[in-house]
Amino acid sequence: DEAAMSSGVSSDPYACDPPRHPVLIVNSSKPFNAETPAEILTASYFTPNAFFYKRNHLPVPDIDPEAYRLEVRGEGIPTPVFLSLEELKKKFPKQEVVATLQCAGNRRKEMTHVRPVKGLNWNIGALGNARWGGVWLRDVLLYAGFQEDDTQVKHVQFEGRDQDVTGSAYGSSIPLHKAVAEKNDVLLAYEMNGDELPRDHGFPIRVVVPGVVGARSVKWLHRIVLSREESRSHWQRNDYKGFSPSVDWTNVDFSKAPAIQELPVQSAITEPAEGAQVLADDGDLVVRGYAWSGGGREVVRVDVSLDGGCTWNVAQLEPPYVSEDDRNAQQTEEGRAWAWKLWTLQAPLPAEGGKLEIVCKAVDSSYNVQPESFEPIWNLRGVLSNAWHH
Amino acid sequence: DEAAMSSGVSSDPYACDPPRHPVLIVNSSKPFNAETPAEILTASYFTPNAFFYKRNHLPVPDIDPEAYRLEVRGEGIPTPVFLSLEELKKKFPKQEVVATLQCAGNRRKEMTHVRPVKGLNWNIGALGNARWGGVWLRDVLLYAGFQEDDTQVKHVQFEGRDQDVTGSAYGSSIPLHKAVAEKNDVLLAYEMNGDELPRDHGFPIRVVVPGVVGARSVKWLHRIVLSREESRSHWQRNDYKGFSPSVDWTNVDFSKAPAIQELPVQSAITEPAEGAQVLADDGDLVVRGYAWSGGGREVVRVDVSLDGGCTWNVAQLEPPYVSEDDRNAQQTEEGRAWAWKLWTLQAPLPAEGGKLEIVCKAVDSSYNVQPESFEPIWNLRGVLSNAWHH
Ligand SMILES: [Mo]
Ligand SMILES: [Mo]
Repeated sequence: DEAAMSSGVSSDPYACDPPRHPVLIVNSSKPFNAETPAEILTASYFTPNAFFYKRNHLPVPDIDPEAYRLEVRGEGIPTPVFLSLEELKKKFPKQEVVATLQCAGNRRKEMTHVRPVKGLNWNIGALGNARWGGVWLRDVLLYAGFQEDDTQVKHVQFEGRDQDVTGSAYGSSIPLHKAVAEKNDVLLAYEMNGDELPRDHGFPIRVVVPGVVGARSVKWLHRIVLSREESRSHWQRNDYKGFSPSVDWTNVDFSKAPAIQELPVQSAITEPAEGAQVLADDGDLVVRGYAWSGGGREVVRVDVSLDGGCTWNVAQLEPPYVSEDDRNAQQTEEGRAWAWKLWTLQAPLPAEGGKLEIVCKAVDSSYNVQPESFEPIWNLRGVLSNAWHH
Repeated sequence: DEAAMSSGVSSDPYACDPPRHPVLIVNSSKPFNAETPAEILTASYFTPNAFFYKRNHLPVPDIDPEAYRLEVRGEGIPTPVFLSLEELKKKFPKQEVVATLQCAGNRRKEMTHVRPVKGLNWNIGALGNARWGGVWLRDVLLYAGFQEDDTQVKHVQFEGRDQDVTGSAYGSSIPLHKAVAEKNDVLLAYEMNGDELPRDHGFPIRVVVPGVVGARSVKWLHRIVLSREESRSHWQRNDYKGFSPSVDWTNVDFSKAPAIQELPVQSAITEPAEGAQVLADDGDLVVRGYAWSGGGREVVRVDVSLDGGCTWNVAQLEPPYVSEDDRNAQQTEEGRAWAWKLWTLQAPLPAEGGKLEIVCKAVDSSYNVQPESFEPIWNLRGVLSNAWHH
């Protein structure tokens, strides 16, 4: 019965999801969650849009850009304001920022080796770096009538157009000061690496909160609500929080931990691949990887060990490859290091041969370091998984 | 020969140093460097001035408050400005901030167990918490004619009145944005816990840079110089920096690491004392300590283990005891957690008895954690020593 079949297909809420590049490593297909393969991750400073990790909580909404309106409302906004895509582009100067986004669950897979956790089994590819183009959130809030000396508003809530079957939308929030301080460079983006924002990344408008967990950079942005309180969404209140290793699903109290905002210092090795054969007559060994830290803290050093962490070499931090355009988008002021650093270590292979145990750990500009192992940072949701990468 | 003897005494550049409380643990007497005993450290939220750690690089200058002038000069300042102590107090509103200061070398002693380092042998008491009263550095810079839209000035240099025999003064600098952003609460202090600033703490004026290593909170402030570059002082350029464990005195290049500014997350146990007998009939075991993080990041959790780090308990974070006065000085806005948190764990003694191995580790609001051990963070100057405390 072809009619029934076709009706069956169209009742799949994921039927309108966009096509994806086959090279992505899929963790879940509905909703679509997929990461960048390690060997592609550090092949370029900017992650090509097709290869950029996709982290969807719900079906991708199909939004008509002509009919799209962004609503701005809430405490401190005299009257709700509605802005079309064209108005956003015309009323506000175009801004660009180079920023890395990372999923709270990046590298969760390694944490699961301690004990099981709830969450998608991300390896090291649930992050990517892009040049985002759009308008400052700050400019839009001031345009909508928000007064900077307002003392009531504490949070800026974002609501997506992605909804579950009950009509409940993805949502999250960031603290007000994060949203309005010029130095935080929070963007409402309509471009990604010079192209129109792809559907999987929030077409036509997404938030980009540099230095903050990806979960707050709400895609398919529908509504901005200024409030005295955090978003009441599941993802703000009952998910994306860190707990002690002693907390399990029988005793967890989500009200007791702060929502993840700025992420801690992170790094991983992308080359050589796990288990690869490295021959001595290849000459020097070359190790590559990425490093990043939240809150605009710059990565200042990456240490690489070839012997499991007994001795360390200091890796070369690659200067970002940037065109004239990209240079303008790069925030160079201190405390605005939103982009990752790719790094390389070139070192002679140990004379004795045998098994290499390559490890990396990064240090940020506040001299925060990564923890040695996963046991002491294990948490029931498997987030914040930033121990040394082996 | 009494005349000669007396001349010999007065030629000691430390002869005019102030008296100190005998309870302090002295690491060096000339210059005077001494820390607070562990049992006193967490006895009160505010560290009494007499017990607050003293970290002097040079003799304590003897400054006549009537003759004192603070000089403000450099790029972006049209004409050097000189302010007397009275002018500072009268021209600018009095401000207060509660902030913890920590020496870069706090807990160095533990790091030396890995390999020797150069530096004073601080245990866990080279930090303290105080209510500082004074005027905003920001206000003074604007008064001296600095324009906020200046794009040349990148650093604010501080010069002390403490000098070595060659006349060279202690100095350091902080980035401009740190100095002028209102939210950073950088103070020129003339009061400490409600009293006149003691001589050992910088009388008549010291800088207090909340969230930043103590070394930048220059005491006996003589001169503020705005500049395109960091302070050229030894302590800014060739000291107070972190390096990889692979770097030693034969290969260190101080130009390769950033000057320490914001410090990483830290914590320590103050009770029970190392080696103390804890009897089962005492009832519950009570463990106390402190935790703090740099950059205004709040401590959000302290985990305490009684079994060397195998299992963890979540400690109680004490609400700060604050009078009405103190409450006004406490910055409660997010990202302005300048003060330490004292914590307590009350837990039943393990039934089996035997040796307890108590360990603590803290987590800050960016979910940064302390590293497990000292080996991987060992550095030749023994700074940034923030591994788990046993
Ligand atoms: Mo995420
Ligand atoms: Mo220090």
